[in-house]
Amino acid sequence: MIKVGIVGGTGYTGVELLRIMAVHPDAEIVTITSRSEAGMPVTDMYPNLRGYCDGLAFTDPDDQQLAECDVVFFATPHGVAMRSVQTLLNAGTRIVDLSADFRLRDLSVWQQWYGMEHEASELAGEAIYGLPETARSRIREARLVANPGCYPTAVQLGFLPLLEERLVDPSRLIADAKSGASGGGRQGKVAMLHGEVGESFKTYGASGHRHLPEIREGLERASGGPVGVTFVPHLIPMVRGIEATLYADLKDPSQFDRLQALYEERFSDEPFVDVMPFGTHPETRSVRGGNMCRIALHRQENSSVVIVSAVIDNLVKGAAGQAVQNMNLMCGLSETAGLDIPALLP
Amino acid sequence: MIKVGIVGGTGYTGVELLRIMAVHPDAEIVTITSRSEAGMPVTDMYPNLRGYCDGLAFTDPDDQQLAECDVVFFATPHGVAMRSVQTLLNAGTRIVDLSADFRLRDLSVWQQWYGMEHEASELAGEAIYGLPETARSRIREARLVANPGCYPTAVQLGFLPLLEERLVDPSRLIADAKSGASGGGRQGKVAMLHGEVGESFKTYGASGHRHLPEIREGLERASGGPVGVTFVPHLIPMVRGIEATLYADLKDPSQFDRLQALYEERFSDEPFVDVMPFGTHPETRSVRGGNMCRIALHRQENSSVVIVSAVIDNLVKGAAGQAVQNMNLMCGLSETAGLDIPALLP
Amino acid sequence: MIKVGIVGGTGYTGVELLRIMAVHPDAEIVTITSRSEAGMPVTDMYPNLRGYCDGLAFTDPDDQQLAECDVVFFATPHGVAMRSVQTLLNAGTRIVDLSADFRLRDLSVWQQWYGMEHEASELAGEAIYGLPETARSRIREARLVANPGCYPTAVQLGFLPLLEERLVDPSRLIADAKSGASGGGRQGKVAMLHGEVGESFKTYGASGHRHLPEIREGLERASGGPVGVTFVPHLIPMVRGIEATLYADLKDPSQFDRLQALYEERFSDEPFVDVMPFGTHPETRSVRGGNMCRIALHRQENSSVVIVSAVIDNLVKGAAGQAVQNMNLMCGLSETAGLDIPALLP
Amino acid sequence: MIKVGIVGGTGYTGVELLRIMAVHPDAEIVTITSRSEAGMPVTDMYPNLRGYCDGLAFTDPDDQQLAECDVVFFATPHGVAMRSVQTLLNAGTRIVDLSADFRLRDLSVWQQWYGMEHEASELAGEAIYGLPETARSRIREARLVANPGCYPTAVQLGFLPLLEERLVDPSRLIADAKSGASGGGRQGKVAMLHGEVGESFKTYGASGHRHLPEIREGLERASGGPVGVTFVPHLIPMVRGIEATLYADLKDPSQFDRLQALYEERFSDEPFVDVMPFGTHPETRSVRGGNMCRIALHRQENSSVVIVSAVIDNLVKGAAGQAVQNMNLMCGLSETAGLDIPALLP
Repeated sequence: MIKVGIVGGTGYTGVELLRIMAVHPDAEIVTITSRSEAGMPVTDMYPNLRGYCDGLAFTDPDDQQLAECDVVFFATPHGVAMRSVQTLLNAGTRIVDLSADFRLRDLSVWQQWYGMEHEASELAGEAIYGLPETARSRIREARLVANPGCYPTAVQLGFLPLLEERLVDPSRLIADAKSGASGGGRQGKVAMLHGEVGESFKTYGASGHRHLPEIREGLERASGGPVGVTFVPHLIPMVRGIEATLYADLKDPSQFDRLQALYEERFSDEPFVDVMPFGTHPETRSVRGGNMCRIALHRQENSSVVIVSAVIDNLVKGAAGQAVQNMNLMCGLSETAGLDIPALLP
Repeated sequence: MIKVGIVGGTGYTGVELLRIMAVHPDAEIVTITSRSEAGMPVTDMYPNLRGYCDGLAFTDPDDQQLAECDVVFFATPHGVAMRSVQTLLNAGTRIVDLSADFRLRDLSVWQQWYGMEHEASELAGEAIYGLPETARSRIREARLVANPGCYPTAVQLGFLPLLEERLVDPSRLIADAKSGASGGGRQGKVAMLHGEVGESFKTYGASGHRHLPEIREGLERASGGPVGVTFVPHLIPMVRGIEATLYADLKDPSQFDRLQALYEERFSDEPFVDVMPFGTHPETRSVRGGNMCRIALHRQENSSVVIVSAVIDNLVKGAAGQAVQNMNLMCGLSETAGLDIPALLP
Repeated sequence: MIKVGIVGGTGYTGVELLRIMAVHPDAEIVTITSRSEAGMPVTDMYPNLRGYCDGLAFTDPDDQQLAECDVVFFATPHGVAMRSVQTLLNAGTRIVDLSADFRLRDLSVWQQWYGMEHEASELAGEAIYGLPETARSRIREARLVANPGCYPTAVQLGFLPLLEERLVDPSRLIADAKSGASGGGRQGKVAMLHGEVGESFKTYGASGHRHLPEIREGLERASGGPVGVTFVPHLIPMVRGIEATLYADLKDPSQFDRLQALYEERFSDEPFVDVMPFGTHPETRSVRGGNMCRIALHRQENSSVVIVSAVIDNLVKGAAGQAVQNMNLMCGLSETAGLDIPALLP
Repeated sequence: MIKVGIVGGTGYTGVELLRIMAVHPDAEIVTITSRSEAGMPVTDMYPNLRGYCDGLAFTDPDDQQLAECDVVFFATPHGVAMRSVQTLLNAGTRIVDLSADFRLRDLSVWQQWYGMEHEASELAGEAIYGLPETARSRIREARLVANPGCYPTAVQLGFLPLLEERLVDPSRLIADAKSGASGGGRQGKVAMLHGEVGESFKTYGASGHRHLPEIREGLERASGGPVGVTFVPHLIPMVRGIEATLYADLKDPSQFDRLQALYEERFSDEPFVDVMPFGTHPETRSVRGGNMCRIALHRQENSSVVIVSAVIDNLVKGAAGQAVQNMNLMCGLSETAGLDIPALLP
């Protein structure tokens, strides 16, 4: 049984890790920390876990306890993991960081977007970007995995085959993405109140969002060269789910007919990417609570514009589920262990 | 491996049965019927099941195929099961009927509320009302189980200990219950459009709802005598979940202090009833997707009015989950097989 | 043109006052205060008012400016108005207090529920409880009106005729009430996040809510004697609207037939109470954005229990709209001025 | 007082016309038709209008009654208006058609997308496309106005200044648009049930939607030449509101700095277009229930991609409100009569 710790477990990512781990056959949570809620039983905050985590309470962070874990998840605000992981790595613990600390190669870009010095540049060089569909073998060997952001997961999976095969003009990619409100976290911010979010829809971060550089780096890895990408996030009045509608110009429109087969082939061995029939419309609820990314392709008349719609559950494939998938890979478990969860529809 | 059939599988109860059975360790769906959708792959209608039910398609009802099943679920409108089950019972197949056909003892009441003759009065006498918390041993032996309605499940579980112990005045019980829109089914009715249900709240059936006689019969079984119960359902602008707030007059207010212990004891061996701490507020999301009923008690000042709040997922404990629980009992499986699903929160 | 000030205008009640006053023919907002947002143009916070309040900005509270107003609305947390209104009253300004400071007659009860000393007991004696349907003539003469709470408005209007006519047992009234999330205000509280409120339903304050004593006092005024009332509020995953389902025992069940006529007569001259046909189901959306309270009566079989469903928009008839109605009465304007707003459906 | 008729008034567009006309100072509804609901009082279907339309009932269509109206709105499925308007025009009645019958210039395209012969090609040539921001003077003179579709209104208003000034590459415009569920109408379709739409998000019509040719024609009028536009609609789990995020390539990136001024100037005299500050995020709720279109511009880093976000209420500026605006123009009334409605926020 793999022993697992969670640092910063009071947010939506934390409870989602607990929900998944509650039925994981080969791993168990042994410690979960929270400075603000130390002492509170987990089930007082998350009654859905009554019967599953009855003995577990939040504790103050304790390096020694964490160092006894095989794997530790960081579900913390940015800036925490980069200061904490070295000690645990020294103790032989492996890390999946769900925050943004190790997601970017270019630390100057990181510093610009996150507004602080990066304090672990060497580890940033070592960290593996944990999108299993692009880095499975490296994740298996990694000590430190940077779990991708929610939007970047959907956008990269949707664009990958087009860029890897150099089929589209990389200089003007558009990613119009939409997320449910749980993506905004569980802090008491006025902007995320039900009274603000309910029955309304809007863009946010349209002039620049922290996931933009992460998306750009990922797409550049896939294409092997510079890309120009415009990324606009939107807030949906619902709790869970991301839909990304992607637009790219096919260099040779006659190639349109082979795209469906290309996508199907590219992801044929992927347990968590589902290429749906051409012209269908993936719904976020078709992945709610599950770790799947569903993708469909569209074409309008004889346009050269490839339209891709990709959906994920932002808390699962966009966060906790992908983190467990990475843990499974790092620990030599079945990649799908604990993640065999049919989505909740309706 | 128990072989399972579903009659009438295109509704929300049908997809929920499929979702649960997809991960059931000891049973599998071998046939699912739908007159209107015969030939359609199940995953075309329910893409959340892609990867789980890939070979399964809706078929025209076929008694022979169904008779080869160990258990058949009827997820049909009322009036269908009562005409169909005898043949299957003769073949040795056991039945869990999720419709209302066999829920009432008093067939004259049934006929009054459902507006048709009851065509299987003998079977109605044989059928066991499938609320495991009140009839576990009889369900184990039953050939034909009438799966309770969603509201009646929540209301009965909430009132049970008070009535079984004769602690409250049975002549004026009040059940103010609220349900998400999936309870209205998947037929194209104007009243259930998002444009009608969204961002609004209302009573419906306040002058009399079909679940009223079912609730009354259940409460009378528990109390051993006549009860007077007022039941008002409401429609919540959300998809899943029922909350029932129950009011009853304690005969002896000094007994209030022992109620919490009474509830905890009454349900201590129940895998799917969770008595929460006194004075807490069960949320429907704490049971979303799971088979649990969570209950909490409240008292205002020194009132003699017992307030009970009970929540279930109307599609799980209120329908498909309870049906699987009944199947498990009837087939000698673990009662919780396939139902060990932590609720999805948020 | 009546000159109006608002103290504490950044919350949902504040923006609602502004929306209504924006088209009021006989009154205009001349000052709106907010300590935290002083200097911010109102339309930066509330873009729906662009074009209506373009010159208006939040200012620090300034007694002199406020004293130049004919009427000042207090849309502040409890405890503010009781310390501030005397100065304004001395200057001849009339006050509508939307907070709870002057709603209760019994100040010891007030102190118990609000956890502080009441610092203006004389004014509390002078203040008129501003439910126009019960106190119209006194409101016309009042200097200081305590605008009722949202739940108390719906519950009182629904029960009034039954109690005034002494038709029901006053000792066991039940009010099961439900509210949209805007009732929780616009502070950054975790419990009111979309991620917490969305797609879920629950009771809250079931063991005792601040509106309980206000409801009790109101019902006792109507009945002329003590009442026993149980009040349980619930949180609906939507933004606006309250529905209250009320239960009372008719002393003489044969009187049931005259109740509809009684309600229609009681409210026949009320511009903002609509008695719907017997057995219909008022929807919260039928009053969204408008100042109307809609009420319908129900009976189940031959029960002696009277069921009343009453709906209001919590921000309009439950707060800002009723405040404007009170202002209209106090200033000798048409009672419906500025409030002739058809509700937004769907 | 202008006398107004509505043909086909039972849908969401119908009730919205009634809501607006209920407070219109210069016009009144004298007849409203519905074959299916003839005889039903309007307020039985739409209780929000109780007190406003109390004498009005749906009637069977009657050409003579309609011909006595000054203006008739058609809120019918496509194919009805084209067969009905000639008679009314002959009688001197003016027509605002809210259906698609007269929206397209190119009738072969119309026939392809709407699957039927166009039976009034001459009238199609006469009809004026009723986007007041582009055709105000012609609308004033028109006998027959084709009221624009909801998506086309938002997309055209958002793109107009860029195309009129030839600032962007017209060959690859992208319009990623999202709508609330009321846009799907009030027919009992399974796909529009709350159980299907609630808590989920998806594309639809991504391979081609009927509003695409209307958008293309409108943008070509604005640009004076062919345009290539990709239009993908999405379904938001809410009732009202459209947000369109538009992407275009600036021919000369150095022109970015003048875009804000250009938009402000272009719409400075428009009563129902609000250009918000650069870099802000229009919310659909900021226009809910009102006739406004709010627009904001964004740029990411130094990209040449212009990002425009435009929001409208699909039932108001996207349907009934714009229809009343057109009626006002046709009848020589104030353009804003009846439309001075602050949006409902929250």
